[in-house]
Amino acid sequence: MKLVSFRVSTPVGTFTRVGAMHGRSLVDLNMAYTRWLADHGEAQPHRLANAQVPSSMLAFLEGGTSTMSAARQAMGYAVTLDPSATGPSGETIVYATAGVQIAAPLVDPPSLRDFIAFEDHIAATSKRRGQPIPPEWYKAPVYYKGNHRTIIGPDEDLAWPLNTTMLDYELELACVIGRKGQDIAERDAQHYIAGYTIMNDFSARDVQFQEMACRLGPAKGKDFATALGPCLMTSDEAADLGGLSMVARVNGEEWSRGRFGTIHWSFPQMIAHVSRGETIYPGDIFGSGTVGGGCGLELDRYLKPGDVVELEIQPIGVLRTRIVGATS
Amino acid sequence: MKLVSFRVSTPVGTFTRVGAMHGRSLVDLNMAYTRWLADHGEAQPHRLANAQVPSSMLAFLEGGTSTMSAARQAMGYAVTLDPSATGPSGETIVYATAGVQIAAPLVDPPSLRDFIAFEDHIAATSKRRGQPIPPEWYKAPVYYKGNHRTIIGPDEDLAWPLNTTMLDYELELACVIGRKGQDIAERDAQHYIAGYTIMNDFSARDVQFQEMACRLGPAKGKDFATALGPCLMTSDEAADLGGLSMVARVNGEEWSRGRFGTIHWSFPQMIAHVSRGETIYPGDIFGSGTVGGGCGLELDRYLKPGDVVELEIQPIGVLRTRIVGATS
Repeated sequence: MKLVSFRVSTPVGTFTRVGAMHGRSLVDLNMAYTRWLADHGEAQPHRLANAQVPSSMLAFLEGGTSTMSAARQAMGYAVTLDPSATGPSGETIVYATAGVQIAAPLVDPPSLRDFIAFEDHIAATSKRRGQPIPPEWYKAPVYYKGNHRTIIGPDEDLAWPLNTTMLDYELELACVIGRKGQDIAERDAQHYIAGYTIMNDFSARDVQFQEMACRLGPAKGKDFATALGPCLMTSDEAADLGGLSMVARVNGEEWSRGRFGTIHWSFPQMIAHVSRGETIYPGDIFGSGTVGGGCGLELDRYLKPGDVVELEIQPIGVLRTRIVGATS
Repeated sequence: MKLVSFRVSTPVGTFTRVGAMHGRSLVDLNMAYTRWLADHGEAQPHRLANAQVPSSMLAFLEGGTSTMSAARQAMGYAVTLDPSATGPSGETIVYATAGVQIAAPLVDPPSLRDFIAFEDHIAATSKRRGQPIPPEWYKAPVYYKGNHRTIIGPDEDLAWPLNTTMLDYELELACVIGRKGQDIAERDAQHYIAGYTIMNDFSARDVQFQEMACRLGPAKGKDFATALGPCLMTSDEAADLGGLSMVARVNGEEWSRGRFGTIHWSFPQMIAHVSRGETIYPGDIFGSGTVGGGCGLELDRYLKPGDVVELEIQPIGVLRTRIVGATS
């Protein structure tokens, strides 16, 4: 499934719901499951559906394989219904994608870790500093923790941050954790991945370089925003990550192109490393780090106000961000 | 007030509640407020009290000044009652401190930032590496993001982590954010601080140094545990932070002693820096970083299994941790 979080505005407030893409439509999975339960004679379909297929993505992921298989059942049922079918009280099950606002698949992840897992990228950034790749990089997949409270979704604007003069994108694939665990072996780690999404680790390079001189890693230089989306592709649909092409365009011009298969540290290796003596949780985001050539820093080109940045990794889709505001 | 989170075990589960210390007793602030409402003729005292003085610390902090003043009112009322007074349905208002388990004041902070704000500490760690203090350190208060999901409380055990051979403590004061905000001026920042607690940023130095060679800052070397406690001293009771003495003892022997007043970057300066273009939230933790001489690294002495580490900053109290398990 390609899962999305989408917003529905109503007279009693705005609700964010979990949907699955189906052509140009979105199926509201909670409501589809409610309908399935009602059609099977359950007395309290809403109450059961809210527990089994929650309508918020974080609770949905916390439901693990049990929720995921109920959601699949609901999806399979929804596509057999008449497109105008409704929930037990007349609620909408199927939305036209064009009519709703797609948010980041997870607007409130409990944490965000970002790795440097592509050798080409660390080679390029090390070379910029006139140094070789640190030998420690080959010993374990290193990461910093990003800001999990500043997630933006597809087609959201990014306000020009911190008066930077070096605003940059980073082209990454992220995995989303779907199961709580600790001390997870690399060979088991795949079962802890709910799915994948595209990640743009926006960076203000001037701010980042200044703070990194103090050896605590990046913070303000990256914390203003991270884009995720457009969907969370469940891991059963992502058999061959290695073959994925990763492309970045600015105002339609291709700036970066890479292949996920060039990654040195795999997501299972990252999960094994992080979970050593430490619990990981559903909804935790692990960014791959920038694919080789996948940022302006490697090209010595930076973003400017008004630019539209598109990161494309098919079949996940295109993650588009418009940069607004002035450098002042 | 000296606020604590404390656990009450009952036949229907364990509940974590917000209390205020009163001598050798703890006042359950939610229940004291419930009682106050009942005594003033409210028809739904529990419902109103749950909204106004929530029983979980994060929701309590999210309530801001409105919740804090209602809690003060409840506390003032509770101390006038007979010690055996109960809630409207016979609930306990006053607990003997000895009879309950005190948890970290905030067991689930939404985020954890840790700074290097003491010049003596960065001077010592820079010297260890044969380098001067980076000039960038004087330009802004730098920090890394710790793991907000591995908080331990007072008198909790720390299991020996990651087979480290260099387990260390760090003696810090932390401030806890009490109000949501962005682009906060240094002169206004004090109003965003709910209070202060002691923080022990446990560190596996061998792991930390290895990963920091890759320039993303510390991660696994610190992420296994951070201790907070024993109470959250509200900022109105902390008029003179500069005069606070900070002491670390291992098995009763004093290893570190410092004075908070030697800090270079103040909490208001940290808040102004972090909140630039970025929202801070109630419950966010800002650690001061290690006071000069406040860790084993500066003394070339490390912890061993069985050690009991005590960090003392009065009047907040003593934050005690026992190290268990083997180095294997």
